[in-house]
Amino acid sequence: MTGAIPPLALSLGDPAGVGPELIAAAWARRKGEGLPAFAAIGGLRLIAAAAAARGLTIPIRQVGSMAEARDVFAHALPVLGELDGDYVPGDPSRAGAQLALASLTQAARLTVAGEAGGIVTGPIAKARLAQVGFDHPGQTEFVAAAAGVAAQDAVMMLAGPSLRTVPLTVHTSLASVPGLITPALVERRSAITAAALTRDFGIEHPRLAIAALNPHAGEEGRMGDEEGRLIAPAIAALRARGIDASGPHPADAMFAARARATYDVAVCMYHDQALIPLKALDFDHGVNVTLGLPVIRTSPDHGTAFGIAGRNIADAGATIAAIRMAGECAAHRARS
Amino acid sequence: MTGAIPPLALSLGDPAGVGPELIAAAWARRKGEGLPAFAAIGGLRLIAAAAAARGLTIPIRQVGSMAEARDVFAHALPVLGELDGDYVPGDPSRAGAQLALASLTQAARLTVAGEAGGIVTGPIAKARLAQVGFDHPGQTEFVAAAAGVAAQDAVMMLAGPSLRTVPLTVHTSLASVPGLITPALVERRSAITAAALTRDFGIEHPRLAIAALNPHAGEEGRMGDEEGRLIAPAIAALRARGIDASGPHPADAMFAARARATYDVAVCMYHDQALIPLKALDFDHGVNVTLGLPVIRTSPDHGTAFGIAGRNIADAGATIAAIRMAGECAAHRARS
Repeated sequence: MTGAIPPLALSLGDPAGVGPELIAAAWARRKGEGLPAFAAIGGLRLIAAAAAARGLTIPIRQVGSMAEARDVFAHALPVLGELDGDYVPGDPSRAGAQLALASLTQAARLTVAGEAGGIVTGPIAKARLAQVGFDHPGQTEFVAAAAGVAAQDAVMMLAGPSLRTVPLTVHTSLASVPGLITPALVERRSAITAAALTRDFGIEHPRLAIAALNPHAGEEGRMGDEEGRLIAPAIAALRARGIDASGPHPADAMFAARARATYDVAVCMYHDQALIPLKALDFDHGVNVTLGLPVIRTSPDHGTAFGIAGRNIADAGATIAAIRMAGECAAHRARS
Repeated sequence: MTGAIPPLALSLGDPAGVGPELIAAAWARRKGEGLPAFAAIGGLRLIAAAAAARGLTIPIRQVGSMAEARDVFAHALPVLGELDGDYVPGDPSRAGAQLALASLTQAARLTVAGEAGGIVTGPIAKARLAQVGFDHPGQTEFVAAAAGVAAQDAVMMLAGPSLRTVPLTVHTSLASVPGLITPALVERRSAITAAALTRDFGIEHPRLAIAALNPHAGEEGRMGDEEGRLIAPAIAALRARGIDASGPHPADAMFAARARATYDVAVCMYHDQALIPLKALDFDHGVNVTLGLPVIRTSPDHGTAFGIAGRNIADAGATIAAIRMAGECAAHRARS
């Protein structure tokens, strides 16, 4: 079945960051890691230079289509299209931001058109892309818009070998979090998450553990009342729909090893509640996956890492995990 | 040096919980774990019954003083004093709460008087103790009061094999946290923490990593301004005092393995920020230690676990770690 899925489209990310070198590193490890076919969207010279800086000598081949990329992949890293730029690791520029945006735009287009089996986005510097016309909070919302899905229905999930988490609120101050939690938000995003775990991850009856907002889940309202007022009603509604949702669980205990074994995803109320346990446990292998889209989208869960680009230090684990997960999700969808 | 330290005083905790059986289990493993001498404060019949329920046959000896406890410890579990009660695991009662409070009170008194080398408190149900006259938020504040220290100067630290964390706010709603953080709070508790790491843990120049409150440390004020307004000034003040404080660090990244290697303690803004990583990494070995007191106080970082008491399930790891840490802290103090 996997053979029928077109290659994945990998956007370059900011060319001054670790994106290009990690594409080269992932291709070099394609056999040992059992990776599905992929193509970089642009960056032939750039990736060659990044590979060299990493001490990798790999064949790189310009291709004219994803069909050609599939034929080439076993023997050379396919690069689709003419986009390219200079490799100046650690020194981000306006031209680099433009290249990152163009690569992302083209990768999303190919994926939405069905020519690519999914999109794996490389790390960008959002503030820099905003200066060259990128008007989305992040790549998640950009890909959602390209796929015709409202941003609020594109659900970010972080996945590592030990844990999957969904932060219901993301890039907002901690003080604003309690005011943003509503029963509708908890219910809608949890339902999208449950459906995606079945469709894309092959989990027939996904178990959702919903986190509390307050310490000790508020201890019957003694330390905050959001659990009873906002979260418990959403869990009841989810259960009435046949979704296996439990909670609200005290957040400190739910990420311990024994607790993790009892659910497939932790639905969290805020950014750090979801990201602290994931990075504590799975720092080098975290994948950011967007649920609820008509296309598959994953990304390594790290930034541009300008400070270590070009120095043969950056760990390719998360990029490899993101590529593998995109291939597996595409295969699950193809089967269903 | 350790030989000069009086035995530790172990309070029973709620007799319907796992406290008594874990005292027996710790004594049974004293040699393999290299534990310092300790005595249970009361509970001769109770501990014998709890040990039997756990399948342990251990000699238990009533003693009249800590000096006697030291002599007895190698061959029998010493129990100091006449306090006792019935063993009804999983079924908490008013009499049990009274026994827990009496044992705690006597253990604290012995420790403050210098007869015990430190106090290791067993798990209590605070709401139940409140019904029999306990008027403190928790055992930390109780021991602080017994030692003549204001509650706000008794600093709770959680310590596991992978990580130490200090939550600056604890049992309060998440919504109230931003309003409770002040530069004075961050500075004062961090300074107490630094001094205690030197005096009790033998770390000559402790490195404190101070967490941010907001995701990505607020990203220059785009997601909350507490970092620049409240936390950074405290860090500057600490550094001006010669304390190696760094931050504010984005909380999601600071608990990854490589980041943890760069500091001795993470100073956190709220309960779950400190407890999520600790329990994710070190669930069965977390110790709650009170810094800033004239006496040593530790505790296993778990609750009464009424649901599993008497069933030979409860893990003794945290109790053993709490006893070992109290002994080590007492030894460091004795040397300094």
